[in-house]
Amino acid sequence: MKLAVIQMHVAKEKEKNLQTAQGYIQSAAEKGADMVLLPEMFCCPYLAVNFPVYAEEEGGDTWQYLSAMAKKHHIYMVAGSVPEKTKENQVYNTSYVFDPEGRQIAKHRKVHLFDIEIKGGQCFRESDTLTAGQEVTVFDTEFGRFGLCICYDIRFPELSRLMVLEGAQAILVPGAFNMTTGPAHWEILFRTRALDNQVYCIGAAPAREEKSDYVSYGNSIAVSPWGEVLHRLTEQEGMFLCELDMDYVEKVRRELPLLKHRRTDLYTITKK
Amino acid sequence: MKLAVIQMHVAKEKEKNLQTAQGYIQSAAEKGADMVLLPEMFCCPYLAVNFPVYAEEEGGDTWQYLSAMAKKHHIYMVAGSVPEKTKENQVYNTSYVFDPEGRQIAKHRKVHLFDIEIKGGQCFRESDTLTAGQEVTVFDTEFGRFGLCICYDIRFPELSRLMVLEGAQAILVPGAFNMTTGPAHWEILFRTRALDNQVYCIGAAPAREEKSDYVSYGNSIAVSPWGEVLHRLTEQEGMFLCELDMDYVEKVRRELPLLKHRRTDLYTITKK
Repeated sequence: MKLAVIQMHVAKEKEKNLQTAQGYIQSAAEKGADMVLLPEMFCCPYLAVNFPVYAEEEGGDTWQYLSAMAKKHHIYMVAGSVPEKTKENQVYNTSYVFDPEGRQIAKHRKVHLFDIEIKGGQCFRESDTLTAGQEVTVFDTEFGRFGLCICYDIRFPELSRLMVLEGAQAILVPGAFNMTTGPAHWEILFRTRALDNQVYCIGAAPAREEKSDYVSYGNSIAVSPWGEVLHRLTEQEGMFLCELDMDYVEKVRRELPLLKHRRTDLYTITKK
Repeated sequence: MKLAVIQMHVAKEKEKNLQTAQGYIQSAAEKGADMVLLPEMFCCPYLAVNFPVYAEEEGGDTWQYLSAMAKKHHIYMVAGSVPEKTKENQVYNTSYVFDPEGRQIAKHRKVHLFDIEIKGGQCFRESDTLTAGQEVTVFDTEFGRFGLCICYDIRFPELSRLMVLEGAQAILVPGAFNMTTGPAHWEILFRTRALDNQVYCIGAAPAREEKSDYVSYGNSIAVSPWGEVLHRLTEQEGMFLCELDMDYVEKVRRELPLLKHRRTDLYTITKK
């Protein structure tokens, strides 16, 4: 199966971002993609104060537009993430997943909020405006089972492990690392989760805008279940198509049986 | 505190290996090391059939020799690993830890046995001759708390996480990766465990012998709690001294509070 990973610029105008996404999605569909993965907050400049302003309820205009795009191009769409507002006025960092009929088949709300304060480096507090999700997310397609998490979520080995214990063969991650954490940790985190769990691990980031308040690292990436980097973009806007072979996942797990060798008699990891 | 990491050749003669180790330990002590870390199976060529032949009980000749070396040089010694035989004739892959008085203060028996069969690559079955350990191992010194595991153990994120939840600030790993798994995974595994758990993560390997039955990758390594490679040897025999700063561990954990941000209300990892 073919996954298209889209790294796009995020402008201030929501409508413009949806048009940019549509251009890429059309191009991906023309190239035979079965699924597209968009970046984190692809239609809202990544800044805590923006999230409530750009937020819409599930089923709102942006949701409708994304659903229609999936249906029009007859493609699975893992719609990066958008700020989701609830009736109780909570805001989540949410990734909707649509099937080729435009139906929502899953959604993930970012579980780990990014609050960081590095001396001389990055400071950011998502929890100022966001509420954290409560679910581990996997979804099924005819190509296999996928895990889904958002950005900072990928730093927590427990979450990836739980997705894989629930059967995920690939983990998809809309994410926007910054210029402190990106160069230091982005690639290694994707390689790590792929290697430890013997899954494909794929990240889609916004393209870098040097002048924005939060500068995205870019470098959208795909890693094999053996831990090899298969594709990696630079900081610029772009797209790559990545072949996911679930038979290869099973081959790696057969030859180096890490998941079988876990000492579940000594330790256990459980969802509460 | 200063940790000396020793990467030595392993000969067929046990006695010769102990002499090689002693030379390095003396040199480490002269350079002001507070602790030494020896490689996995540093006095027994790494081969499943060798383990029962080279095995001794706890307190046997090799153990006595190691204890005496620690005391003589007044140094903590994490004595790589040796095959340990029990009265019931089980054999473990065991790492003894001695304090500067020569007293054993901890031991780790390899928990995950290495059974692998890669097409066109490495085949090895530790479980043919070894029994697996049953414990997560940490030990205390005046410099801080250390976690200890052996080689294949480092592939399992649960084990490192448990050591860290028990307070480990550094994880020590005698290990002998091979020429398939070493180039592919050695460095990334040490960087990963260090980064995810915000600990120093340090591996000591036998030097490479191209003509031996099992060819060690070498590349003994030390990684910081931020995931940076601080030291790394080549395939050749050698030693490096590594400064471990437990205040830096706390600084990294304060600025990027990964351990605090774990969603323990959603998932839990427990020892059985």
